[in-house]
Amino acid sequence: MIVPDKMTDHIEELALANRILAHEGVLDAFGHVSVRHPADPARYLLSRSRSPLLIEPDDVLEFALDSEPVRPPKVHLYAERVIHGCIYQARPDVMAVVHHHAPAVMPFCIAGKPIVPVFHLGAAVGEDIPFWDQHAEFGDTNLLVVKPEEGHSLARALGGHSAVLMNRHGATVVGGGLKELVSRAIFMCQNAEYQMKALMLGTPEPLHRGETRLAGSISLMPNVVNRTWEYWSMRVPSGGAASPRCRSAPARPRSGKRKRQR
Amino acid sequence: MIVPDKMTDHIEELALANRILAHEGVLDAFGHVSVRHPADPARYLLSRSRSPLLIEPDDVLEFALDSEPVRPPKVHLYAERVIHGCIYQARPDVMAVVHHHAPAVMPFCIAGKPIVPVFHLGAAVGEDIPFWDQHAEFGDTNLLVVKPEEGHSLARALGGHSAVLMNRHGATVVGGGLKELVSRAIFMCQNAEYQMKALMLGTPEPLHRGETRLAGSISLMPNVVNRTWEYWSMRVPSGGAASPRCRSAPARPRSGKRKRQR
Amino acid sequence: MIVPDKMTDHIEELALANRILAHEGVLDAFGHVSVRHPADPARYLLSRSRSPLLIEPDDVLEFALDSEPVRPPKVHLYAERVIHGCIYQARPDVMAVVHHHAPAVMPFCIAGKPIVPVFHLGAAVGEDIPFWDQHAEFGDTNLLVVKPEEGHSLARALGGHSAVLMNRHGATVVGGGLKELVSRAIFMCQNAEYQMKALMLGTPEPLHRGETRLAGSISLMPNVVNRTWEYWSMRVPSGGAASPRCRSAPARPRSGKRKRQR
Amino acid sequence: MIVPDKMTDHIEELALANRILAHEGVLDAFGHVSVRHPADPARYLLSRSRSPLLIEPDDVLEFALDSEPVRPPKVHLYAERVIHGCIYQARPDVMAVVHHHAPAVMPFCIAGKPIVPVFHLGAAVGEDIPFWDQHAEFGDTNLLVVKPEEGHSLARALGGHSAVLMNRHGATVVGGGLKELVSRAIFMCQNAEYQMKALMLGTPEPLHRGETRLAGSISLMPNVVNRTWEYWSMRVPSGGAASPRCRSAPARPRSGKRKRQR
Repeated sequence: MIVPDKMTDHIEELALANRILAHEGVLDAFGHVSVRHPADPARYLLSRSRSPLLIEPDDVLEFALDSEPVRPPKVHLYAERVIHGCIYQARPDVMAVVHHHAPAVMPFCIAGKPIVPVFHLGAAVGEDIPFWDQHAEFGDTNLLVVKPEEGHSLARALGGHSAVLMNRHGATVVGGGLKELVSRAIFMCQNAEYQMKALMLGTPEPLHRGETRLAGSISLMPNVVNRTWEYWSMRVPSGGAASPRCRSAPARPRSGKRKRQR
Repeated sequence: MIVPDKMTDHIEELALANRILAHEGVLDAFGHVSVRHPADPARYLLSRSRSPLLIEPDDVLEFALDSEPVRPPKVHLYAERVIHGCIYQARPDVMAVVHHHAPAVMPFCIAGKPIVPVFHLGAAVGEDIPFWDQHAEFGDTNLLVVKPEEGHSLARALGGHSAVLMNRHGATVVGGGLKELVSRAIFMCQNAEYQMKALMLGTPEPLHRGETRLAGSISLMPNVVNRTWEYWSMRVPSGGAASPRCRSAPARPRSGKRKRQR
Repeated sequence: MIVPDKMTDHIEELALANRILAHEGVLDAFGHVSVRHPADPARYLLSRSRSPLLIEPDDVLEFALDSEPVRPPKVHLYAERVIHGCIYQARPDVMAVVHHHAPAVMPFCIAGKPIVPVFHLGAAVGEDIPFWDQHAEFGDTNLLVVKPEEGHSLARALGGHSAVLMNRHGATVVGGGLKELVSRAIFMCQNAEYQMKALMLGTPEPLHRGETRLAGSISLMPNVVNRTWEYWSMRVPSGGAASPRCRSAPARPRSGKRKRQR
Repeated sequence: MIVPDKMTDHIEELALANRILAHEGVLDAFGHVSVRHPADPARYLLSRSRSPLLIEPDDVLEFALDSEPVRPPKVHLYAERVIHGCIYQARPDVMAVVHHHAPAVMPFCIAGKPIVPVFHLGAAVGEDIPFWDQHAEFGDTNLLVVKPEEGHSLARALGGHSAVLMNRHGATVVGGGLKELVSRAIFMCQNAEYQMKALMLGTPEPLHRGETRLAGSISLMPNVVNRTWEYWSMRVPSGGAASPRCRSAPARPRSGKRKRQR
C-alpha cells in the first residue's frame, strides 16, 4: 500500500512533468503525460483534458489499463487515452508515457524520415525509432488514436523501443520512470532539431552503435538527473496556471469543476 | 434582440481573440479580427485602427457590410475593412474573419506555393487554400485591399473555402464562429511551418482527402475547444495593453480618445 | 530656437527608438541610432557608447557633422560615429540614421546577395539596396567604419537610397524622420527573413516597380504610424534598463557617470 | 596573496558569467565555465554540478589542475572537469574555459564541417577552429570527456587556438580572461548561425586573414567590453535562480547543501 503522502508526491511530480514538457516546447495546447500507478500496475495516472502547462495535482485522475476512468468523471477526458493504456498493457517495464506533437519532430513525422541519434544526449532514444503509419492499417481516420485496436497497433509498432513516430501526427515516448521520460523527450526534440540543421550542412551519420549504447544512459547519471530536473523545474512558471505571463483565471468560469485557489 | 450582457460578452471575446492571435504569432503590429454582429447579420464588429495585442473592448466599433462605420468615428479606422465586409456579404455562413501577415505563411505568399494540410490539425483549413493575385486583376497597387472591388475580388477568390493566400501580402481566414476561426488560423500557421521544414527533409504529401475531411473537425470537439481556448487565453498577458512586458501608457497621449484605466 | 521642452521630447524619442529597435531584434549589444538636431542641421544627437536597450535620455550627446562631440565627453563614445556624420553631410534630406547587425540581414551581408522587396511592407526600403565592400576600397581593416574616409565612402555607396548593406558587417538605414526610420529598419528585417525562407520554396520575384513605389509609403500613413509606434512602444520593457527581465543595476558601479534613478 | 574582497569579486564574476552564457543561449541544462585561480595558477574555480543559469557564488569550488577538488566535496561534481584542468595545464596563457553544447554549433559538430569567421565579430575565434574526433582515438565511448587521457587529447587538439569543436558533442572555448571568453563564446555562436544561413544563399567566404587578425580584437576594445558586459549582465534574471520566470525553490529540498536566501 502507498501511504497518502507518497501518492501526493507522485501526483505533484506528474503535474510538474506536464508543465516542464510544456515549458520546454515538447507539449503545447495538446499532448499528455501519464505515469503508472505506483502501487497498482494495473492502473495509471493521467490528467483530465487540459493543456499541459496548466495542469495541477487536482486535475490528475486514475485510469484502468483499458483507459476507462476508475471513478465516473465529471470532466472532459483526453480522447487519446488508449495510447497510454495499451502501452502499459504491452510493456510491463514502462512506468511513464508521453504523447506529443513537438514542432521539432513534426517535419520527420510528415516527411516520413527517421530520427537517428546524432549527438551524445540524443542517444537517450536508442538506436532506432520505429515509424507507425495509421493509414496503412486503418485507412482514412481523423488520425487520432481513439479505438483500442488503434492503441494496440501503436504499441506493437513501438515494440521494445523507447519512442515511436506517428505518421503526420506526432510521437509517443516511454520511460522507466517519469524523470527518465522527461529527459528522453526533451533530448529527442533537440536531436531532431540538430539532425535537421546538420542536413543543411552535409550528410550527418548517426552515432556508432557502441556510442549510442554507452551514451544512452548519460541522462540516468545521478549528477545529471539532479541537474536537469532542478533546471527544468526552476524554469517552469510558478504556481501552475498562475504564471507571470498567464491570466490568473480563464476567460469563462468552467462548469463541472471549481477553480482551485492556491 | 440581444440583451446588453450578451453583447458585452461578444465584444470581450472579440478583444480576447485579437490578443490571443497576437500572442500566438499570427498577428503583429498589423492584422485584424472581426465577428459578425450576433443580432444583425448586416453588421459586423471590428476594432478601431490599433495593433491587435493592445485591443480592449472599448476599441470595438460596429460596421455595416459596406464597411462604413455605423456611427461617425472619432478615431482612425483600419484601411482594409472591405476584406471583412465583402466576405460577410458573399458568405452568409461566415461569422468571423481574420486578415494577417503571419511570418509562417509569408514565404508561401511570396514564393506563390500552396499550403496543403500535412498534419491532423492542419486539416482545419480544408483541402485547398486558393491563391489571390491582386496584381493580375488590378495591376500596380500598394497591395492593400482598400477598394470595394478589391474586397469583392478577394471574396470571389476565397469562394467556399476556409482561407485564401494573398500574393506578397498575407492571408485571410474565415470561420463559423470566433473560436473556430482562432483555432483554424493558429493551426494553419503551424501547418505552414511544418510543411516548409518537411520540404527540407523530402517531398511531403498532403493528408488523404478522407483524412482531411475527418480530421478537419477535431478542433470543434468539445474537449478540444475547451482545452485550446483556456490555454491560449491563459497565455495572453493580462489586462490587455498592461502586460508585464508592456509600458503602462503609450509614449504620447493619444488625441481623440482617452486612455481607459482598468 | 527650440524651446527646452521640445528638445526633451526629441531626446526621449531617440532613447525610445533605441529601445524599440533593440526589443524588436534589429539592434543587440551593438548598433546605434541618431537623429539630426531639430534646430541645427549641422549637429546630430547620439548616445554615449551603450547598448541600445539600456539607453536613457541622459545618455544622449550632441555631435558636430565631423562626429566630434560638441562638449568634451567624460564617457566612452561609439567608435563608428562617422557613419552618422558623413551621411548627414551628404544627405540633407536625412533626419535619422541607424547602423545595425540584425541577424535577419547578416546572411545577405555575408553571402553578398541583394535584399529586394518581396512583400508590401518591405517596399519601405525601396527598389534597390546598394552593397558596400569596405575591403575593395580599403583592403584589410577590422571592418569597423572609423575613419572619415571610410564614412564618406559608405555615404557615397548609400547614394540616394534608403539603406546600404555592408560586406560581412551589417547595414545602415536612413529616414526622413525617426518614426519613418524605425518602421523601415523593422520592415527591412522582416523582408530579409521572408525572402530567405521564400528561397527555400522557390525563386521569389521582387514586387513590381510600381508596387514598390506605391507600397513604399504605407508606413507613412497616419493610421499606420500611430498603430506601429504605439505597439512597438508598449512592447518595450518600461523604464529603460529596469525591465522585468533586467537587473536593476549593472554588475559593477560605472565610473564617470552616476546611475540615474527614475 | 589575494585579499578576500578581491576573491569574492572573482567568484561573483564567475557565477555571473555562467548566468550570462546561459541566458544568451550558449549554455542550457549543461555546460560549465571555469576561471584560473587569480592567485595560484595551479588551481581553478568551477561550480559544483548545477545548471549554469542557477549558479550562485556559494556553488563555486576550487580544483587542482588534475581536476580533483581541493577540499573533499559534499556535493555532486561535473563529470567532465578534466576538460578544464587539462587545458590549464597545457596553456599557461588561458585564464578561463567554457565547454558547451550550444544549438548554434551543434550542426557543425554533427556534420563535421568547419566554423570559419564570416563577420567582423566572428573574428574573435580566430582563423581556424580545430575539430576533435574522440572516436578516432578512443573508439566507442559515451562521448563525455572524463578520463585524463581524453582531456589531454582534447587539449592537444585545441593547440594554440581559441576554440575546438568536439565530434557529435559540442565545443570548448578558451580566453585570456573571463570577459574575453564570454564575448568569444557568444560571437562564435552568432558566427555559426550566420554562416549556416549564408550557406542557404550562396557560398560564403571567410574574412581575409588580415581582417580576422585586425577584427579579432574588437571585443577587447574598452568601449566594447564595457558595453557588452553591461548589456549581457542587465539581461540576466536578477538574483540567480530567483528569476521572474523561475520558481523560487526547487521541487525538492536538496540534501547536502542548504538553499541560500538573498
